[in-house]
Amino acid sequence: MYSIGIDFGSNSVRALVVRCADGEEVGVSVVDYPSGDQGILYSSRDPFVARQNPADYIYGLELSVRNALASAAAHATDFSARNVIGIGVDTTGSSPLPVDPENRPLASDQRFKDNLDAQCWLWKDHTSFAEAQWITERSARDRPQFIAKCGSTYSSEWFWAKIWHCLNVAPEVFDNAYSWVEIADWIPSVLAGVKEPAAIRRGICAAGHKALYSEEWGGLPDKDFLASLDPRLSALRDRLYRETFDASQPAGTLCAEWADRLGLPEGIPIAIGAFDVHYGAIGCGVTEGMLVKVIGTSTCDCAVVDVSRGTADIPGICGIVPGSILPGYLGIEAGQSAVGDIFKWWVEGVCEGDAALHRKLTEEAAVLKPGESGLLALDWNNGNRTILVDQLLTGLLVGQTLHTSRSDIYRALIEGTAFGARAIIERIREYGVKIDRVVCTGGIAEKNPLLMQIYADVTGCTMQVAGSSQTCALGAALAASVLGKAHADLAQAQQAMTSLRPEVYEPVAENAAIYDELYGLYRILHDGFGGLRTSVDMSTVMKELLRLKSAQAQDGGRAHAH
Amino acid sequence: MYSIGIDFGSNSVRALVVRCADGEEVGVSVVDYPSGDQGILYSSRDPFVARQNPADYIYGLELSVRNALASAAAHATDFSARNVIGIGVDTTGSSPLPVDPENRPLASDQRFKDNLDAQCWLWKDHTSFAEAQWITERSARDRPQFIAKCGSTYSSEWFWAKIWHCLNVAPEVFDNAYSWVEIADWIPSVLAGVKEPAAIRRGICAAGHKALYSEEWGGLPDKDFLASLDPRLSALRDRLYRETFDASQPAGTLCAEWADRLGLPEGIPIAIGAFDVHYGAIGCGVTEGMLVKVIGTSTCDCAVVDVSRGTADIPGICGIVPGSILPGYLGIEAGQSAVGDIFKWWVEGVCEGDAALHRKLTEEAAVLKPGESGLLALDWNNGNRTILVDQLLTGLLVGQTLHTSRSDIYRALIEGTAFGARAIIERIREYGVKIDRVVCTGGIAEKNPLLMQIYADVTGCTMQVAGSSQTCALGAALAASVLGKAHADLAQAQQAMTSLRPEVYEPVAENAAIYDELYGLYRILHDGFGGLRTSVDMSTVMKELLRLKSAQAQDGGRAHAH
Repeated sequence: MYSIGIDFGSNSVRALVVRCADGEEVGVSVVDYPSGDQGILYSSRDPFVARQNPADYIYGLELSVRNALASAAAHATDFSARNVIGIGVDTTGSSPLPVDPENRPLASDQRFKDNLDAQCWLWKDHTSFAEAQWITERSARDRPQFIAKCGSTYSSEWFWAKIWHCLNVAPEVFDNAYSWVEIADWIPSVLAGVKEPAAIRRGICAAGHKALYSEEWGGLPDKDFLASLDPRLSALRDRLYRETFDASQPAGTLCAEWADRLGLPEGIPIAIGAFDVHYGAIGCGVTEGMLVKVIGTSTCDCAVVDVSRGTADIPGICGIVPGSILPGYLGIEAGQSAVGDIFKWWVEGVCEGDAALHRKLTEEAAVLKPGESGLLALDWNNGNRTILVDQLLTGLLVGQTLHTSRSDIYRALIEGTAFGARAIIERIREYGVKIDRVVCTGGIAEKNPLLMQIYADVTGCTMQVAGSSQTCALGAALAASVLGKAHADLAQAQQAMTSLRPEVYEPVAENAAIYDELYGLYRILHDGFGGLRTSVDMSTVMKELLRLKSAQAQDGGRAHAH
Repeated sequence: MYSIGIDFGSNSVRALVVRCADGEEVGVSVVDYPSGDQGILYSSRDPFVARQNPADYIYGLELSVRNALASAAAHATDFSARNVIGIGVDTTGSSPLPVDPENRPLASDQRFKDNLDAQCWLWKDHTSFAEAQWITERSARDRPQFIAKCGSTYSSEWFWAKIWHCLNVAPEVFDNAYSWVEIADWIPSVLAGVKEPAAIRRGICAAGHKALYSEEWGGLPDKDFLASLDPRLSALRDRLYRETFDASQPAGTLCAEWADRLGLPEGIPIAIGAFDVHYGAIGCGVTEGMLVKVIGTSTCDCAVVDVSRGTADIPGICGIVPGSILPGYLGIEAGQSAVGDIFKWWVEGVCEGDAALHRKLTEEAAVLKPGESGLLALDWNNGNRTILVDQLLTGLLVGQTLHTSRSDIYRALIEGTAFGARAIIERIREYGVKIDRVVCTGGIAEKNPLLMQIYADVTGCTMQVAGSSQTCALGAALAASVLGKAHADLAQAQQAMTSLRPEVYEPVAENAAIYDELYGLYRILHDGFGGLRTSVDMSTVMKELLRLKSAQAQDGGRAHAH
């Protein structure tokens, strides 16, 4: 028996065919989105705009699945598409899409096809920062319970902020949108042949983490609250949804049209849609005590706590939602707005290099000791998702001399993201959630042992890497395998289908001691520039960095570059 | 009649032959120092070390003068070396050199030739930061008048700090040094054939600005004060000097040996040695109300105030010394520790480019409007000379996004140096010294109209560029022309021999308004990281930068870089 996981990323879609018995990945295909700049539609007038053409999803869906099936047939002699027992879908998010009354993207209407505001609003679109701030303020005043569940701050990346911003800047789009659907819910609905938005089975993951949905207050925010933002948002509520489902539930079954288009059996279950990182956490084998870090362009961090044990609200995180990752567990999500994107910006954007330069700088940076660069960076080039939840923050680098090299800066940027990771772990622990090991997934974790060791040294946690290189798609396939009855439940499926790589990165005590000092300086910058403290003494920062640099250089460091 | 100015820079020596009547530059030669990395000796163990081989000075002196004379003979038909009426010398500083009882460099002794501590301690050697701080503290406590005259802070770049550091780290060098001489004084003494350190005629410029010399307290610091630092410094005082001279005085006359080596008339006057920027200010035509900025790797700023008018002590500047620039005027010196060096670091060190990249980034940066990069930089990659006088400061860049380009950063670095320049001008004006125009000299000022306009917009001052490209050597030649009786005094010589370029950079009001806001943010960073204020609210900085960026981009700015 086989299941298929389909992972809709920021630049491409990946279909993965998995053997249910042991998680063996027998076929895969990656299809780049054809539109825009690597699949993303930008605006020449507003750097915060990031949209996607929904037609790209349909194109990528069909092509990637067909190619993955062909690849499986070519490489696994016992494989047949007839033995596929289920499909799972994961996507980016919050990435909401305006749809018409027949569940068609508004962008497929000729009137709107070139209108950026009628496309899918990709997760990293930050145009809605003002609306996000208003939602935070109104909720804090009128419905504190809403905002407490998502870290006390509503983000410009999320559902309501984006839709409200659309209403404010493009009312013709808003007025012609019958409903709005996260692509995590919309793609399964397409596969299931759902022809009206009200019939879409929506996932608790997107709803709970991004749309202020909770059974505690009867689902989505009440109409009075929405009306206090804008009466038209209140009216929209009736055209959204009342019920949500976790990963143990199907989104529907494969309709005849899509069974034909994909070459798969009609009627097989489609798992409920969820965000990539949530299925990725499942694909990493997430359990209590483990933090899963999906390290890509940005980072998402996931942890689970048994619902019966529960947890207090944790300020600054991206939500605590029952069942959003594993059924029966609170799903905790946090994240960093840019990680791989920062390294890419430095190497490709500023140094104008390529993969070879990534390797070269990594090699040079690996020779440095903690503190030896004399540099300290804030990892905020794309804002701060956790723990500050503030898109209106930017990068910072301090400690440059006339001898600072591009690899010094490269290492400082890695370290900056590690300090950001530590701030998240410390915040979650402060509220009583146990984290004793970290499992990472994504190409950076697999390919960059320097980064993994720095993360271990900075966070003090044992770091491991997931066995699969495609944990998001694997997690989606895993949920489908349970619905297809290959396994009794998700825990059994995780036992059978997930693994870890042999490498284990343990903190090195002498590095950790230096990084404790650097983290103290990082928090001075973090708290000062991030607004946690409005009266800060910065006068020690440069001197302490020079002291550490000097101490580490004298301690047998590399020769000075002359 | 002709005179010769010889300018000893950080990497090379330049000899200039000038017609006294009109300042026409009839011959020039530049000779690179043969030793080290572009003439500078570094240490693999300590990035603060910067020394020079004194043999390079002798080599460069002879070769550059002979070549310049040959060049003059080739290009000016009426030229003859017999018509050279004087020689002037300017050098970097404070760059002290240990010498033996016969005025020979200690480094010419076989025992010390490879000892870095026995070489000339170049101005930008920063190994002595601890000693500088001790001198500042002891002086503030015991001799506040000393330190008040040089901006309240003694610098690691200066005479006593360097010599004391040598005593601390290399006592064998200190003990074998009979005396220490600034190369500004030593090179004229070589030309004059002086064979004992006591006979060297020392300039007020180096003595007053770097060695705490003042007639107010009887010359160099008293022996009790020096003994409180180290008794051996007190003993050294007897082997230094009691008297100093300004630019109206000769250092001596050309000795037979050097007349022969250079092919010049024996006995012609040698002007008193002074620092490059001080003679550069004269070569720019410095008068009251004018700030001269010598913009090179670093920047030196010079202004003069009539001695009879006087001025209060100005905290943070590099000294107020009677006669150090123009006889009869207080010479005020300030400066920035790195300007051209920062651009060079960015373009060549980080971006790994060349002169073509300098031009490309300048062109791209010129398209940006003030504030449009969203960036703000502290210009402290080599510490801060004025107004903080603190070498233990480093660079800082804030405002980076994932779209920030190398030309965005290039412009921000130019702006950072402009803000540093404004801080100096504001400080000098606060103490009642009038500055209504700025005359710049150096290759950057001549070749980079973008930088000049930014400086005008940031400082609010009219910016002009000196007519000569070799103002330091010209100023030295000008002093020599007065001693050789081609002119009655320096003012008349300036009238005849100096000029300005036709370009005038006036502040543009709309740019100046944005820069006023950015300067406010710069001062938050400057005062916070620089320690002027220990309780600072940094939380507005990133948001204000984003606001200005957004406002400038919407106001018809360049298209977003996708």
